[in-house]
Amino acid sequence: MLGDVSTKAAHALGLPEVSDFFAKLIQRVSPKSYQQALIEVLVTQKFLENFCGDQVRFLARSFAVPGNHLGQQSNGFRWPYGPVAVIAPFNFPLEIPLLQLMGALYMGNKPVLKVDSKVCIVMEQMLRLLHECGLPVDDVDFINSDGKTMNKLLVEAKPRMTLFTGSSRVAEKLADDLSGRVKLEDAGFDWKILGPDVNEVDYVAWVCDQDAYACSGQKCSAESILFMHENWSKSSLLDKMTELAARRKLDDLTIGPVLTVTTETMLDHAKKLLQIPGSRLLFGGEALQNHSIPKIYGAIKPTAIFVPLEEILKDEHYPLVTKEIFGPFQVVTEYKDNQLPLVLDALEKMHAHLTAAVVSNDILFLQKVIGNSVNGTTYAGLRARTTGAPQNHWFGPAGDPRGAGIGTPEAIKLVWSCHREIIYDVGPMPLGWKVPAST
Amino acid sequence: MLGDVSTKAAHALGLPEVSDFFAKLIQRVSPKSYQQALIEVLVTQKFLENFCGDQVRFLARSFAVPGNHLGQQSNGFRWPYGPVAVIAPFNFPLEIPLLQLMGALYMGNKPVLKVDSKVCIVMEQMLRLLHECGLPVDDVDFINSDGKTMNKLLVEAKPRMTLFTGSSRVAEKLADDLSGRVKLEDAGFDWKILGPDVNEVDYVAWVCDQDAYACSGQKCSAESILFMHENWSKSSLLDKMTELAARRKLDDLTIGPVLTVTTETMLDHAKKLLQIPGSRLLFGGEALQNHSIPKIYGAIKPTAIFVPLEEILKDEHYPLVTKEIFGPFQVVTEYKDNQLPLVLDALEKMHAHLTAAVVSNDILFLQKVIGNSVNGTTYAGLRARTTGAPQNHWFGPAGDPRGAGIGTPEAIKLVWSCHREIIYDVGPMPLGWKVPAST
Amino acid sequence: MLGDVSTKAAHALGLPEVSDFFAKLIQRVSPKSYQQALIEVLVTQKFLENFCGDQVRFLARSFAVPGNHLGQQSNGFRWPYGPVAVIAPFNFPLEIPLLQLMGALYMGNKPVLKVDSKVCIVMEQMLRLLHECGLPVDDVDFINSDGKTMNKLLVEAKPRMTLFTGSSRVAEKLADDLSGRVKLEDAGFDWKILGPDVNEVDYVAWVCDQDAYACSGQKCSAESILFMHENWSKSSLLDKMTELAARRKLDDLTIGPVLTVTTETMLDHAKKLLQIPGSRLLFGGEALQNHSIPKIYGAIKPTAIFVPLEEILKDEHYPLVTKEIFGPFQVVTEYKDNQLPLVLDALEKMHAHLTAAVVSNDILFLQKVIGNSVNGTTYAGLRARTTGAPQNHWFGPAGDPRGAGIGTPEAIKLVWSCHREIIYDVGPMPLGWKVPAST
Amino acid sequence: MLGDVSTKAAHALGLPEVSDFFAKLIQRVSPKSYQQALIEVLVTQKFLENFCGDQVRFLARSFAVPGNHLGQQSNGFRWPYGPVAVIAPFNFPLEIPLLQLMGALYMGNKPVLKVDSKVCIVMEQMLRLLHECGLPVDDVDFINSDGKTMNKLLVEAKPRMTLFTGSSRVAEKLADDLSGRVKLEDAGFDWKILGPDVNEVDYVAWVCDQDAYACSGQKCSAESILFMHENWSKSSLLDKMTELAARRKLDDLTIGPVLTVTTETMLDHAKKLLQIPGSRLLFGGEALQNHSIPKIYGAIKPTAIFVPLEEILKDEHYPLVTKEIFGPFQVVTEYKDNQLPLVLDALEKMHAHLTAAVVSNDILFLQKVIGNSVNGTTYAGLRARTTGAPQNHWFGPAGDPRGAGIGTPEAIKLVWSCHREIIYDVGPMPLGWKVPAST
Repeated sequence: MLGDVSTKAAHALGLPEVSDFFAKLIQRVSPKSYQQALIEVLVTQKFLENFCGDQVRFLARSFAVPGNHLGQQSNGFRWPYGPVAVIAPFNFPLEIPLLQLMGALYMGNKPVLKVDSKVCIVMEQMLRLLHECGLPVDDVDFINSDGKTMNKLLVEAKPRMTLFTGSSRVAEKLADDLSGRVKLEDAGFDWKILGPDVNEVDYVAWVCDQDAYACSGQKCSAESILFMHENWSKSSLLDKMTELAARRKLDDLTIGPVLTVTTETMLDHAKKLLQIPGSRLLFGGEALQNHSIPKIYGAIKPTAIFVPLEEILKDEHYPLVTKEIFGPFQVVTEYKDNQLPLVLDALEKMHAHLTAAVVSNDILFLQKVIGNSVNGTTYAGLRARTTGAPQNHWFGPAGDPRGAGIGTPEAIKLVWSCHREIIYDVGPMPLGWKVPAST
Repeated sequence: MLGDVSTKAAHALGLPEVSDFFAKLIQRVSPKSYQQALIEVLVTQKFLENFCGDQVRFLARSFAVPGNHLGQQSNGFRWPYGPVAVIAPFNFPLEIPLLQLMGALYMGNKPVLKVDSKVCIVMEQMLRLLHECGLPVDDVDFINSDGKTMNKLLVEAKPRMTLFTGSSRVAEKLADDLSGRVKLEDAGFDWKILGPDVNEVDYVAWVCDQDAYACSGQKCSAESILFMHENWSKSSLLDKMTELAARRKLDDLTIGPVLTVTTETMLDHAKKLLQIPGSRLLFGGEALQNHSIPKIYGAIKPTAIFVPLEEILKDEHYPLVTKEIFGPFQVVTEYKDNQLPLVLDALEKMHAHLTAAVVSNDILFLQKVIGNSVNGTTYAGLRARTTGAPQNHWFGPAGDPRGAGIGTPEAIKLVWSCHREIIYDVGPMPLGWKVPAST
Repeated sequence: MLGDVSTKAAHALGLPEVSDFFAKLIQRVSPKSYQQALIEVLVTQKFLENFCGDQVRFLARSFAVPGNHLGQQSNGFRWPYGPVAVIAPFNFPLEIPLLQLMGALYMGNKPVLKVDSKVCIVMEQMLRLLHECGLPVDDVDFINSDGKTMNKLLVEAKPRMTLFTGSSRVAEKLADDLSGRVKLEDAGFDWKILGPDVNEVDYVAWVCDQDAYACSGQKCSAESILFMHENWSKSSLLDKMTELAARRKLDDLTIGPVLTVTTETMLDHAKKLLQIPGSRLLFGGEALQNHSIPKIYGAIKPTAIFVPLEEILKDEHYPLVTKEIFGPFQVVTEYKDNQLPLVLDALEKMHAHLTAAVVSNDILFLQKVIGNSVNGTTYAGLRARTTGAPQNHWFGPAGDPRGAGIGTPEAIKLVWSCHREIIYDVGPMPLGWKVPAST
Repeated sequence: MLGDVSTKAAHALGLPEVSDFFAKLIQRVSPKSYQQALIEVLVTQKFLENFCGDQVRFLARSFAVPGNHLGQQSNGFRWPYGPVAVIAPFNFPLEIPLLQLMGALYMGNKPVLKVDSKVCIVMEQMLRLLHECGLPVDDVDFINSDGKTMNKLLVEAKPRMTLFTGSSRVAEKLADDLSGRVKLEDAGFDWKILGPDVNEVDYVAWVCDQDAYACSGQKCSAESILFMHENWSKSSLLDKMTELAARRKLDDLTIGPVLTVTTETMLDHAKKLLQIPGSRLLFGGEALQNHSIPKIYGAIKPTAIFVPLEEILKDEHYPLVTKEIFGPFQVVTEYKDNQLPLVLDALEKMHAHLTAAVVSNDILFLQKVIGNSVNGTTYAGLRARTTGAPQNHWFGPAGDPRGAGIGTPEAIKLVWSCHREIIYDVGPMPLGWKVPAST
């Protein structure tokens, strides 16, 4: 049945008038360019295509192993939790709630869904589309409330599992309130390393620009720090990144309002970083001009600040440098050939381990960096990026048993089901069986 | 390397003098018969055999899926957490800590191990054997302490994952203290249902006796409540169970001391149950005589108390009837053909969902009960039992995202590793690629 | 890309006017009722839905296992053969060629397709639809020829793999001509066993009628012999089957022409069977009247002939009784409780092992029959059937390394790809490595 | 049970006196150095370790997918064939027959085993060891005969599957005689390509020497042709290979008798190659001196002949150059940076696709060569080799549906089992079901 709903919804979302409607609706509540909003719709549509036909039942695939005697067989099932909750943030008003909601349904759960109230109109429309495509109205409960009310509801209703996507602060509070019955995908201070082999500078510069500044940096996968091998410093990379950042403008929302950090906070952070010895402003670092963005939101130009590696690693600077700014803001640094261990140290000390990129085609270099890091979604190779994971790449943090995933069949199974073992042991009894002694 | 350690340790444990040594060592600290202690050693040995040769590397099997263009491929790995902790209880001094410890090692973690201090001598000996078999001494930290000290250590050291096996009370505290970075296997109020088809009464009575009273009921999988279809009440089942319980004696520890509940507590619980209308004592209900078991431990005869189903379901009795007594104690009840929904209701209201047994070869009956319950390890069929899961049957609770598993490759992967996605994207760049517009 | 083609083609086939067009087109060339033709279209459509979105790439999922030293990893891929051939029969003009063709494409092969020339117009139309949905015209070669020409082409072009669905005679010739580089799905003498537990007689009778006589028995899964437990003989089963057979009529093609066996041959076969001692005609056994079916085709009423089990097993009768008649024809027999071993003997002696049904909910009975038989697609349980496997049930013979499968992801992978192992071993070299002695 | 046999046999083979016994026994019948013979024993032992404990049952793991209604579930099993045959060659008297034999047993078959009569004493001893370890004597039939008698037996007994390892000529004959009911692992003309990145010349030279000349080249994975990038020609590689070849001597069997090709045939082949324009002798090309090897065997020095790439590709030379010589003999050639397409052409035209090596750490180069070739076991990276696959690397040809594999769990499942689908459909019937119209 859910296979049919997915088939129909995927087809509907693929119609130009429907995808256009949702892309524009996303733009009305979430500050991103039309292209970024449209990609969000398309990824959602592709996800639904992935669970057409029998693919929902294939998700519930179990396995069996022969037992110790005739008639015994152990079976490992993926089993639903039952009543569950999905809590989704503002930055992807369609993709995150829909993928998690459908995942919960595919595995047989009964979800209640809450989306950030600033953007929940998108999912409200999407639910109507799903109902139109055959989803029974009783299958999902949709709640509009502030976080406090939702927290109360969760603590009282005790869902067997709660999926939360959003800030680390709320994530930790929820983990406590729900005694750990959660899967979390919180923000990340995501890094990119450029390896010793310099190639395709235009391409790499463009990817850096997109990774750091698309959606005004308000992706949990946005590039927060860039480690360049000295060979890259000698290239035209920084010049090109500067040019690309300068192309961004408010008109088409390639740069735009920041919903959770004010202009003042961001500029203040920049100022503090620039006080570190050897730091310098690469570009940006100024408020946007000529706009009507309310003061409670932030509005700055795409910003990059260089900080020397040795300074980053100092205890007095590390927390400051690695503080996540959920806006168009990144730190850039440089390492020499023999300083790779220092870079790895810097990574090791980070708390969240969401996305990462290692831009290099040098096999041994890749092996070293990947083997010494734990980020959940790690891109490797010349074309590596931190953002833009499509529905067919698992997206989620690693290194934490509470870590969630989104997108792939494996993510759905991990987040929305648990293992249940059923051992059939039906006989026949062996001939001449006698009651043995007690043990 | 760990494959070699496992091979050697499995071989060593299989030598009669070694298995005998460990069985007797277990008996000295944990009250169980020689047979039960020996089975614990053998299950441990079989587990080690399962990870001989290349099987440890096969555990780390990853998968890959082609990407969107030449040179892109996404890879799903099982990745270790890094520093982790294992906390194991008194009732299986060898099997539980060893299986979890090796699982942690197999997946590449660095574990610290704490076993209940009453019984930790067993693992202390086992670790020496492992070192002898080639395990580097630095690979495992072994701690002897009380729970309070261990708690402090965990809160300060912040292992990325902590596996706890033990009481629900401590489990919940740990989940809070460690903000949910745990996998738990806590006690269970385990049930068995006898279906409408009566067959092999001798066998079923013997399994009931073992499930409820082996190890004096101190298994987390011990049968706590038995639902008999009325057809079974008419059989000789209860008579036979009474006879079998009467065979148990202190001499060979087929009945023995209860480490965490006193005689008084258990007899008091029996008394309260017997005040429920329609209840009656089936057998037991008395303290053991002529023994030197200290008063801080419990010592009662194998006990079964009948309580009518309708009374169990009443709000005023339900918590009392389903209170877990970690000793040789079970509740028995009966249901008529049309009362199956009441039985399912009774199951639904339970909190912990560890093991269960549905004794029937009636396919439609099995389907109904299994489809309406969520216990993690569920045996089904005429030969179903609640206890005695070998290393090749996943053992663990279901219905809780914090639930752990033990024994099988799937359990090891779930508990001791997380998903990490590495996407290779190495090019070559498409011919004529140009920098696109910002988005 | 193929995911998109499948998505579009599935959607197109789901449009009422398109599915109606194909159902009627099938009816024009293959003698079956509108319902049966429509189901063929729907199964095809569902199959295409199963490979929407990223599911084609998920089919190509590989796995990897860590090696012996840093930098070594072995990878198991599903690899295409390259140039391959698909040869499909007359009875399912759309489903069989399309499912196999798409399977070949999904795994990356370059197929040449030949469909029985009587019915190839259906696939010719379907290919045009696929091209419309984006399939490049160069991806598939479509050949219309007689078998002889095709055989010549195969022997000369030497495709790396040839999938053949059709008669056993041609299958064996192809296996020889192509030195075994084939996967085969040939006809089967399919059996059904009714177990000791009699239930839902109406339902079972209806399933028997459909299994034996739908499409006038021209399915390779059609029921050819029915073994009834004596308990079923005492029921109204045979009466009901007689009634149901009598409902079938030429008007709506619920009975119709037989393309590969003449009326004379079938009636002659019936006559021979009736000469066996104890045999009797249950129903049918007559030519259809008042029709314009050409003499080169067959046209008889649905026919069932009872032959005693003991006689079937005699060497002089066994080949006659188990000769496959690809038309509306079945043998019925009866066994007593203690004669199950004779039934299993009868099964053991059969050559082809395609579909089978064990109609019983008695677990131990099912276990015995299934454990002693090897048929590829075996239905078990009260609702068991021999025909009507949808796209999500693997369909194919077992017990032969040349056996093909159709429908599921596993079938596609088996038939259309082979294992390729790529072991990466990139270093770094261990420090201080020196050239060892020769060995 | 077979898990126990494997455990015991692995332990026994690991005892120094037993492995030494088998290594020397292998040396008595198969011309290889002690080291090579010992490695054969150790690989066999490791293989047995891999199937200790429950691992045999894990091989038989099945899967299940939910059906269309309550009570329906489809199950995919790996099912044994029943009576099967294993035919093994002279060059690995222990490893090949044992691994295939155990694979056949693990999956539940009843094998008959024939090993080349010159070397069958090794398996005869090994079978006695297996019997000692608990293998029932009835489980395996062991035949000593010439090939002709065996062929007759197979044609008459019609095993459901025959695994053949040996020469292509016999393989093709068997495929015909058994109508394709075979899995084959025949000889290969195996290639190695050295990429543009020159590194670790000592190591690569040593691997070339071992790949081409260990066991006097009598491995089906032996390096038959070496394609060097021009950068390697400029290195000291060829000099080093010449030195290493010169170290080999009859005394310790690092060079020794060739069992299936005479000295004359090999020297004659060398002469023909040297007549190709631009060809030259790199080293070897002479008969061994001072030995007592009978004339029916071959005895030459390790030999390498350089042939220009352009000449190899000419139709008049290609068959000669790519003729497999099952002895210490290889062709060497060179390609310039822009000649990689010619190299890929040369690979494309080869018939057998067994092992291959691409020696390079250049990701894009690896991608190109691997994507354009189909060899079954392909090593890639600086440390790539063609020989020496351990039991945990699938070994077998690709690109042929009759291709066998050896070693890994996947190989065992492919060769020794087939898919069987069992669909349980047990009801209950939907309420109010009525007999529908016929179709």
